[in-house]
Amino acid sequence: MRTSAEYIDSINRLIAGIPYPEEPHGLYEPIAYTLDCGGKRLRPILLLASCDAVGGNMDGAVNQALGIEMFHNFTLLHDDVMDRADKRRGKPTVHCKWNEATAILSGDAMLTMASQLVGSGCNDKLSEVLDLFHGTAMEIYEGQQYDMGFESRDDVTVAEYIEMIRLKTSVLLGCACRLGALMGGADIEVQEALYRYGISLGLAFQLQDDWLDTYGDPEVFGKNIGGDIMNDKKTFLLITAINKSDAARHEELLSMLGSRSADKVERVKAIYDALNVGDECRELIERYAADAVSELDKAGLDGDAREFFVNIAKASLTRRS
Amino acid sequence: MRTSAEYIDSINRLIAGIPYPEEPHGLYEPIAYTLDCGGKRLRPILLLASCDAVGGNMDGAVNQALGIEMFHNFTLLHDDVMDRADKRRGKPTVHCKWNEATAILSGDAMLTMASQLVGSGCNDKLSEVLDLFHGTAMEIYEGQQYDMGFESRDDVTVAEYIEMIRLKTSVLLGCACRLGALMGGADIEVQEALYRYGISLGLAFQLQDDWLDTYGDPEVFGKNIGGDIMNDKKTFLLITAINKSDAARHEELLSMLGSRSADKVERVKAIYDALNVGDECRELIERYAADAVSELDKAGLDGDAREFFVNIAKASLTRRS
Repeated sequence: MRTSAEYIDSINRLIAGIPYPEEPHGLYEPIAYTLDCGGKRLRPILLLASCDAVGGNMDGAVNQALGIEMFHNFTLLHDDVMDRADKRRGKPTVHCKWNEATAILSGDAMLTMASQLVGSGCNDKLSEVLDLFHGTAMEIYEGQQYDMGFESRDDVTVAEYIEMIRLKTSVLLGCACRLGALMGGADIEVQEALYRYGISLGLAFQLQDDWLDTYGDPEVFGKNIGGDIMNDKKTFLLITAINKSDAARHEELLSMLGSRSADKVERVKAIYDALNVGDECRELIERYAADAVSELDKAGLDGDAREFFVNIAKASLTRRS
Repeated sequence: MRTSAEYIDSINRLIAGIPYPEEPHGLYEPIAYTLDCGGKRLRPILLLASCDAVGGNMDGAVNQALGIEMFHNFTLLHDDVMDRADKRRGKPTVHCKWNEATAILSGDAMLTMASQLVGSGCNDKLSEVLDLFHGTAMEIYEGQQYDMGFESRDDVTVAEYIEMIRLKTSVLLGCACRLGALMGGADIEVQEALYRYGISLGLAFQLQDDWLDTYGDPEVFGKNIGGDIMNDKKTFLLITAINKSDAARHEELLSMLGSRSADKVERVKAIYDALNVGDECRELIERYAADAVSELDKAGLDGDAREFFVNIAKASLTRRS
């Protein structure tokens, strides 16, 4: 097993080496820009590490790793157009730096390039690989659709929310783990256990995102604390607070949706604290991280490989940005 | 060989039978709406007919036909967002009927569904089929990018324009023909000849579009005559007129770009007529249609099959809408 830093290094070199056609520059430049914006590279790390962990050689899975990262960045690019976000990882989004048509078209090209990459060098596994990848992609669009649908609803349940983040976030982590294991030649049981590891990891990861947005350290988090509250984002915290609150608090919470008042974040946070939703969120994160780790035993991982994936799960609990 | 009407009938029944998931409705409803809006179904007709013409059975290529039509409709959906078009085939576009985020996301899902469909039931041809399909998709994005880039240029050459429409329009017709032949078990030479048939047909088809937009019969055309002129669209007619005009007419043409004056269409048309660009366009259409027909002999088609494709090429010359 390599270290995470070594995997990231390999991935960044692979990304820098993508042979874009010279022309039309206006199509390919925003793609290179998007991929070059950094990020945690969590999905390709999981993919390459899964391949190595099952006794494969990550060199045989680099196209799939690039393809999954390309796909992930495509979703960010199009999500930013849909959300009208103007910054991503501290840099202007593509539709702001260029224009919306460019962002849509370059994103489309990234999706097709992702399919090309994921399907490269698969030989007799091609059909299996693409079924997994395209099935996952469809689930992710469904998750994004549910997320958008939640915006106009006050009655979202925790179960609906967890299902939404499973679709929007977790399945791609599960897919990355499973694809790596598949390319590495693992049995179906190992593939499935690593898939479930990715699912639980993804749930822990997204809940940590929700928690950090309200309880993170403004010096470290990188985004404004309270952005989700200000934007009425239906996170685990807000949904749990709406569900747990008595009539008076319930009315107070609903009355604040849509408001942009300066004390909104403080007032909502006070309700969260009174209802202990922050602690409830942390308990759930720990449960999902523990679920993830338990799948590693089912996958039969031990030694370095097990430690690598345990550390990723632990990091999802403790990350601050 | 079936008749075109029989192929259309099969395709419409296939489209009506697509098993969309029940939920999330907000993702799948716009997809069904887009595919249900009709259109000529030219690409799946070409695909199924190519399969039949080479001695295959179109039943083995229905997923590819559906996939190509799904892809084509995805490009229309996203192009309409990029162009801010509010109508398509007489009905409100998805981003007008729903909203822009829905149009982007449903289009993304259509692109992935197209890949799934095109790759269904290919067995040992899967890799070849997907290379052709994804390579074609990339060319189409390049074509769209060139087309958008032309908006801000006055010096587009005819050769650049023909290359743009080859990428934006023709390669999908070529791909449809070739995919049908490939699924039908044709030799590579036959596949390539039918691909070239589709390319020439696509050029004739797009030039006929350009011509009809200026010289069509307003009663039959279905869109406003002169829309391209009013919107300064860099069509074959405008590009040829700019290139052929003397200094005075050149200046007059450029001065009209950006104008929305009521007599703009009449004035530009008068320049076209003085320079004979309409006739030049018709000559080119006939040349490409003849090129298309000549490829049928290289593909070794005869009898009913040859006649079927000749008739499609002829129809591209004479269509009025």
